[in-house]
Amino acid sequence: MTALAWYNGAPTAGVPLSNRAIAYGDGLFETIRVEHHRASLLRRHLRRLARGCERLGMRIDGAALDREIAAVLDDHGSGVMKIIVARESDERGYAVPAHADAARLLQFFPREFTADARNSEGVAVRICRLRLSEQPALAGLKHLNRLEQVLARSEWDDPAIAEGLMLDSSARLVEGITSNLFLVRDGVLSTPDLKRCGVAGILREVILEQLAPGARVTDLSLDDMVAADEVFLCNSVAGIWPVRTIDGLHKPVGETTRALQQRLQQLIEHEAQ
Amino acid sequence: MTALAWYNGAPTAGVPLSNRAIAYGDGLFETIRVEHHRASLLRRHLRRLARGCERLGMRIDGAALDREIAAVLDDHGSGVMKIIVARESDERGYAVPAHADAARLLQFFPREFTADARNSEGVAVRICRLRLSEQPALAGLKHLNRLEQVLARSEWDDPAIAEGLMLDSSARLVEGITSNLFLVRDGVLSTPDLKRCGVAGILREVILEQLAPGARVTDLSLDDMVAADEVFLCNSVAGIWPVRTIDGLHKPVGETTRALQQRLQQLIEHEAQ
Repeated sequence: MTALAWYNGAPTAGVPLSNRAIAYGDGLFETIRVEHHRASLLRRHLRRLARGCERLGMRIDGAALDREIAAVLDDHGSGVMKIIVARESDERGYAVPAHADAARLLQFFPREFTADARNSEGVAVRICRLRLSEQPALAGLKHLNRLEQVLARSEWDDPAIAEGLMLDSSARLVEGITSNLFLVRDGVLSTPDLKRCGVAGILREVILEQLAPGARVTDLSLDDMVAADEVFLCNSVAGIWPVRTIDGLHKPVGETTRALQQRLQQLIEHEAQ
Repeated sequence: MTALAWYNGAPTAGVPLSNRAIAYGDGLFETIRVEHHRASLLRRHLRRLARGCERLGMRIDGAALDREIAAVLDDHGSGVMKIIVARESDERGYAVPAHADAARLLQFFPREFTADARNSEGVAVRICRLRLSEQPALAGLKHLNRLEQVLARSEWDDPAIAEGLMLDSSARLVEGITSNLFLVRDGVLSTPDLKRCGVAGILREVILEQLAPGARVTDLSLDDMVAADEVFLCNSVAGIWPVRTIDGLHKPVGETTRALQQRLQQLIEHEAQ
């Protein structure tokens, strides 16, 4: 896969050693779907990035980032735009440098978005053995410390398994490795509370705020998933994936999930007008 | 601080975008004291690195790394050598690439090691508010996911505080942000068990295996630290730091700590012969 990349606006093939993403993962990222030169849900992505920077005590030059995103979108019509912001320092050691703006790395991965059977027919998933650790100080953030996800994803290589579900160390359901999780029971949606761990995804936010404002955010167990009428995953690049099987447990692709997919499609089309 | 750096043996000012340290922190590091063109405790550092690679499922070209270390030591006599090994992939996504050796980044930070009051007179430390999360799959590893350390170190900027002590989410003592912790009571050493979190440091290993084989590895609480006769920190670059005050609680620099410092000095001198 050929990536196009820019570092603080200049084309790049790498990251300087001063970038603390390398040594510490001291930064955040966003992964954004681009179609017709338009970044989907961009304002939500940038708001989440700003909130994350505030929680990590990172400064970011938002105006420069906006200009750099606009330049990428001018030249590239369809694909995935990844933004990494990370602190820089020439000093060794964990102490956070004062007064420095975080560096901006933009990458663009060209691809076309065609009809995907994972959206229409649903996916098979597994439950990962690795448990997510509980760290309220980082919970919800899309930060660069992703070894847990790397280890969880290395548990299988069967291409028929589209995603791994992760539990926390207390066996609560949290999320998919690259997606958020929703359960539907008696027409009511619920999604795990992410106060201890997990990434608060943009599509999860859209569902909670716009598509299904009655959805519950709560602690959920495997038993809740077994009892659910429908299960689905979401992320802002892939959309909504109905879950058809979980380690062999079958679930139907139900009406609530289908209706949400339609409403999401309408929202995205409306946003694009 | 000017760093000299080599990527898979070639001089570099940065890291290519294919290096998964940037996006995921998918790697490990070692930080090694170099004096008189000699890397202190090098075999132990390399053994730990190999063990870590095995736990993360990473392959490493050990012969190439040995050659690259030797070349750095030929040219540079005194300072800190940092080794980062991290997986590379041109694909997006967490899935671990098959069959690829991890990339090797060597950095050398020149400095002279002169007598340091932190060793002779001891240090003041604080207890960090941030708690370490518990993740057995990563416990003990010196991996590149270091946001907890970055956040903990950002809790203070008083240069009189040399180190922050970290507890886990269950309030057990774990370590310092960049060091391991030992307590001494009635002449008996103890250090926290690192099966849930923490970095199993090389100097901790030396103390447990060579300098004080009777030391206990166990769960320890703040109460244990309050009751201790002596408290000290260790890391392989700084050596042993007696702890003089912990958030205002005073501790003496005791005989056991002094004796260990002397035996460590003898061991290092013996190793250098």
